[in-house]
Amino acid sequence: MLYSKSFIFTLREDPKTAECISHKLLLKGSYLFMVSSGIYSYLPLGFRVLENVSNIIRKHMNSKGAEELLMSALQPIEIWQKTGRHEVLKDVMFKFKDRKNRNLCLGPTHEEEITEIVRKYVSSYKQLPRILYQIQTKFRDEIRPRFGVVRSCEFIMKDAYSFDIDENGLNENYNKMFSAYKDIFKECGLEFITTEADSGAMGGSASHEFMVPAEIGEDILCECEKCGKHFKETENCPHCATKLKEKRMIEIGHVFKLGTKYSAAQEALYLDNSGKRKPTIMGCYGIGVSRVLAAIVETNYDEKGIIWPKSVTPFDATLVCLDEKIKSEAISLGEKLEKTGLKILIDERSEGAGVKFNDAYLIGSPYMVIMGKNYVSYGKIDLEERKTKEKKSFSEQELISFLKEAYNK
Amino acid sequence: MLYSKSFIFTLREDPKTAECISHKLLLKGSYLFMVSSGIYSYLPLGFRVLENVSNIIRKHMNSKGAEELLMSALQPIEIWQKTGRHEVLKDVMFKFKDRKNRNLCLGPTHEEEITEIVRKYVSSYKQLPRILYQIQTKFRDEIRPRFGVVRSCEFIMKDAYSFDIDENGLNENYNKMFSAYKDIFKECGLEFITTEADSGAMGGSASHEFMVPAEIGEDILCECEKCGKHFKETENCPHCATKLKEKRMIEIGHVFKLGTKYSAAQEALYLDNSGKRKPTIMGCYGIGVSRVLAAIVETNYDEKGIIWPKSVTPFDATLVCLDEKIKSEAISLGEKLEKTGLKILIDERSEGAGVKFNDAYLIGSPYMVIMGKNYVSYGKIDLEERKTKEKKSFSEQELISFLKEAYNK
Repeated sequence: MLYSKSFIFTLREDPKTAECISHKLLLKGSYLFMVSSGIYSYLPLGFRVLENVSNIIRKHMNSKGAEELLMSALQPIEIWQKTGRHEVLKDVMFKFKDRKNRNLCLGPTHEEEITEIVRKYVSSYKQLPRILYQIQTKFRDEIRPRFGVVRSCEFIMKDAYSFDIDENGLNENYNKMFSAYKDIFKECGLEFITTEADSGAMGGSASHEFMVPAEIGEDILCECEKCGKHFKETENCPHCATKLKEKRMIEIGHVFKLGTKYSAAQEALYLDNSGKRKPTIMGCYGIGVSRVLAAIVETNYDEKGIIWPKSVTPFDATLVCLDEKIKSEAISLGEKLEKTGLKILIDERSEGAGVKFNDAYLIGSPYMVIMGKNYVSYGKIDLEERKTKEKKSFSEQELISFLKEAYNK
Repeated sequence: MLYSKSFIFTLREDPKTAECISHKLLLKGSYLFMVSSGIYSYLPLGFRVLENVSNIIRKHMNSKGAEELLMSALQPIEIWQKTGRHEVLKDVMFKFKDRKNRNLCLGPTHEEEITEIVRKYVSSYKQLPRILYQIQTKFRDEIRPRFGVVRSCEFIMKDAYSFDIDENGLNENYNKMFSAYKDIFKECGLEFITTEADSGAMGGSASHEFMVPAEIGEDILCECEKCGKHFKETENCPHCATKLKEKRMIEIGHVFKLGTKYSAAQEALYLDNSGKRKPTIMGCYGIGVSRVLAAIVETNYDEKGIIWPKSVTPFDATLVCLDEKIKSEAISLGEKLEKTGLKILIDERSEGAGVKFNDAYLIGSPYMVIMGKNYVSYGKIDLEERKTKEKKSFSEQELISFLKEAYNK
């Protein structure tokens, strides 16, 4: 991919609207475009990261036997009246009437709609258990949208729902999802902690939150620096009596045991093996996909810009060509690397070295490949690792081998 | 994929709400779920087809140098006031206020938003030309939603936008998109025609429609049965004077030369090489992704169900096991086929042959693989091609080779 042909237009100045590190770097690096307060579009760079995160999620969800579907954003208010949540969530729901006076809302979540689907198709214990999920856009009329895509009015979520005949089944699916979440966040390069949480508006019997420690976090947890354990609303560690320390956290995932709240209210019933009608036992499992993107940046950056983990980076390496005379060699090397399956941003622009280095650091590919004086004089290509700043010098063949190995290509 | 584990629940009866063949078969085959009139969710089978169609579109768009992004569905009404289209499109726009009294709408299309994006980042002729596209959910308050996903209030579109410095550039990008569209629809298995069309609410200088002949079409074209050419509002063929015949068409794609209507109104200006500010010259290019899915079914079915083209089918073959005794052999064969990269639906359910055949025909995989008497007695596996009904008998190794070759695996 040639830089000059890519929709990458980094900003020289820090954007005035930026409220935190991730917000600033994603705007400055032309990952995100602010449409209006709390409303963002993903520019091509941001879209690439979004796809990488989504595909990691898909891989781990599918490996647990979950099936992907895509539910509507528009929902009739009637399905919310069945559970009473049109009242509980009324402040955050975007509601309106269509031309036929039908009361619609934009789904802030999809428990009601998935329960309608399962009610229609599942009628026997033989059809259970099931896990269904989607990666889809949600809408919430936030009181205080902030921090870019950390808390916005339109955001992308992965929401999964499990349906079982009994508590054992629910526990099994809950554990599957819990384990998938650990794999997903680990693969995304996030250092997270898990904690038992309130079920709040979801109304279930147990739940866990997945959190990333970050300055901008809106959740507060108490940490025992001795045990390394986390608690809510406790002053001293229940294990070792050490005074707990407050830490701010971004919530990136949440798993809930819902029980029969939705299935009973919406009559999503199945016949058990003795012919008795019972509500299915449900669980729900959410990941804030757009928020994961922000949380990764919030915990992977330095003064020069973003430092993407290899698993989600929009480009595996940025190849910076510092001399017009070797532009065609640079493009040719970039294309050779791309043929091995690597994603390379080839910076062949007629800009000074300073501009090119700054853009490469800001955009944040895990490696910068530099073709300059060293190449012209000695045929050597320099490589700098973004995170460690470690520098190496390679022949062309050595460089190709190094990057192929770094990315298992 | 085991049938018993898949969210596939075909309906025995024709759904009462079905208004046409594709609507009926997609509901009956559990591809779609009707949430409310004009609002649909894609069940796992439907989602698979949607992904296949989307990936064909991506491949051809990317090959023309177009870059993918993802714009917001929520849009502030102000950007529409700049072009006056808040009036032109007011009847089909879902509009509402948020809790801060901000006037928002759900994007029925994205010319205004993409123009805002390009206005922010593009300021010089050196940054042009560009083609940007997204595959995204659109919302329209339809007077008469009908035919399932052919005309619904929430639907998926691929919308692309080109930006150029002059008419020559626009023509080049327009031709690129025109050519990509032909490749896309061909690969999707659609027999389409193209026709020059009115630009309507888009306000451009030239446009072409891509149409598929179908009984439920809402557009009428006049066809010369002698020349094979198509015209609008003509009684006799202008070439051979033959009386034209009316044909109904589904519009699946539309390309427009927009000119400067949006860029001038929204001040998306660039500096030309003499330092003069000029509005960019735009084109826009839409494909109704959900509608393509319906159009494929509308033109690929028989009395028993859907006949998917190989390129978009949710499963490459349905493997029907007719004897409980050979269930493990059937599953093992299915898994062998899956290891070659083929997508196999293994029907290992304890149902009668009639039910299994009916479901396989309805779901519409291009091939049905049958393990029954012929396998038990002679070790032979039968294969039936969905479209031609042609039957073959194979050894296991022959069958694997045949399917691998059929799908270039």
